[in-house]
Amino acid sequence: MPFVKILVTREGVTREQKRELIKGVTNVISEVLNKDPQLTHIAIEEVDTDNWGWAGEQISILREQGITADKK
Amino acid sequence: MPFVKILVTREGVTREQKRELIKGVTNVISEVLNKDPQLTHIAIEEVDTDNWGWAGEQISILREQGITADKK
Amino acid sequence: MPFVKILVTREGVTREQKRELIKGVTNVISEVLNKDPQLTHIAIEEVDTDNWGWAGEQISILREQGITADKK
Amino acid sequence: MPFVKILVTREGVTREQKRELIKGVTNVISEVLNKDPQLTHIAIEEVDTDNWGWAGEQISILREQGITADKK
Amino acid sequence: MPFVKILVTREGVTREQKRELIKGVTNVISEVLNKDPQLTHIAIEEVDTDNWGWAGEQISILREQGITADKK
Amino acid sequence: MPFVKILVTREGVTREQKRELIKGVTNVISEVLNKDPQLTHIAIEEVDTDNWGWAGEQISILREQGITADKK
Repeated sequence: MPFVKILVTREGVTREQKRELIKGVTNVISEVLNKDPQLTHIAIEEVDTDNWGWAGEQISILREQGITADKK
Repeated sequence: MPFVKILVTREGVTREQKRELIKGVTNVISEVLNKDPQLTHIAIEEVDTDNWGWAGEQISILREQGITADKK
Repeated sequence: MPFVKILVTREGVTREQKRELIKGVTNVISEVLNKDPQLTHIAIEEVDTDNWGWAGEQISILREQGITADKK
Repeated sequence: MPFVKILVTREGVTREQKRELIKGVTNVISEVLNKDPQLTHIAIEEVDTDNWGWAGEQISILREQGITADKK
Repeated sequence: MPFVKILVTREGVTREQKRELIKGVTNVISEVLNKDPQLTHIAIEEVDTDNWGWAGEQISILREQGITADKK
Repeated sequence: MPFVKILVTREGVTREQKRELIKGVTNVISEVLNKDPQLTHIAIEEVDTDNWGWAGEQISILREQGITADKK
């Protein structure tokens, strides 16, 4: 009976990316915990960059300064 | 001091339905736990059907296939 | 596809009370939103009274002062 | 590794107020728990007044009745 | 800056399974969203079977009836 | 009507530290948003270090390697 909540900043996540997140995370849970996917729900919450803080600063301001969360 | 979070898909829940959810859930908590309703808060989070996954698939795609969550 | 999280203070909620909460809240959602109960999940999170704050104070300290959350 | 979720009603919270919330809460956590701010994330969730219930009633209806959440 | 909360029933999830969940979900997010893993946090919440409800019933009671959440 | 959830690793947070977190965060919200503290609830969730992941690894393993979350 897993339930998963994924919080990400609202920065243009596409419908296809959301679909891949849902498939990928459901697979991990199904494989690791042997859970029936029909009992697994996933909700993605997109958070405005004004509403997310990291290291005491708004993400929207960090983005204006050229600081990203991209993989290096 | 209960706090309740209700997550539902954003599929046309009306203002009146939200009001009934709030009244109904507050009543259940008040009756079962004997809690003062003035200390009970409820927040409803509506989740886009692109952002909710069940059984590894997006709800928006399940809806396009005619699969609903309605009571049978 | 509703998911409900109920947070209450850990103050002796019995197994039977939890069962009534689950039945009651599932019924409200099923009646108001016409949702299939097989798609409705509910999780109860019990929070130690040291870990819950109201009005800027720990519930455990309010309880020592005789302040309860009981219905009046 | 703290993560903080702040839920408030969506009633005109400004970008600057959000910034102050992020700074203020990160400072409290950093001072009380001695945590590295670079490991502290904060997400603010704004909830429509139709979607928040208190004492069994929708906030939007309480507001229409002149009942506010302002400090006294 | 993703944050992920995974709720599962407390039914003997091992330390190694938790580690695999963390690795697997972080990989999915990193690959699909191109996010820096150093900005991705995951918290697993284990919920007692008395505290989780599905289809209006406590999981602990469903388990006593031989109903599992295992993959078929 | 704010509600705040603070997630921290379970690593010996004292009752007094929790009290300071509750007071401090309630003050920030009261000052920045002008909210009545009697409508502000805070819940602290302590997460086992086996159950928290950062950068794809369990915190319990990072701690064994001498990696802390302390302020520098």
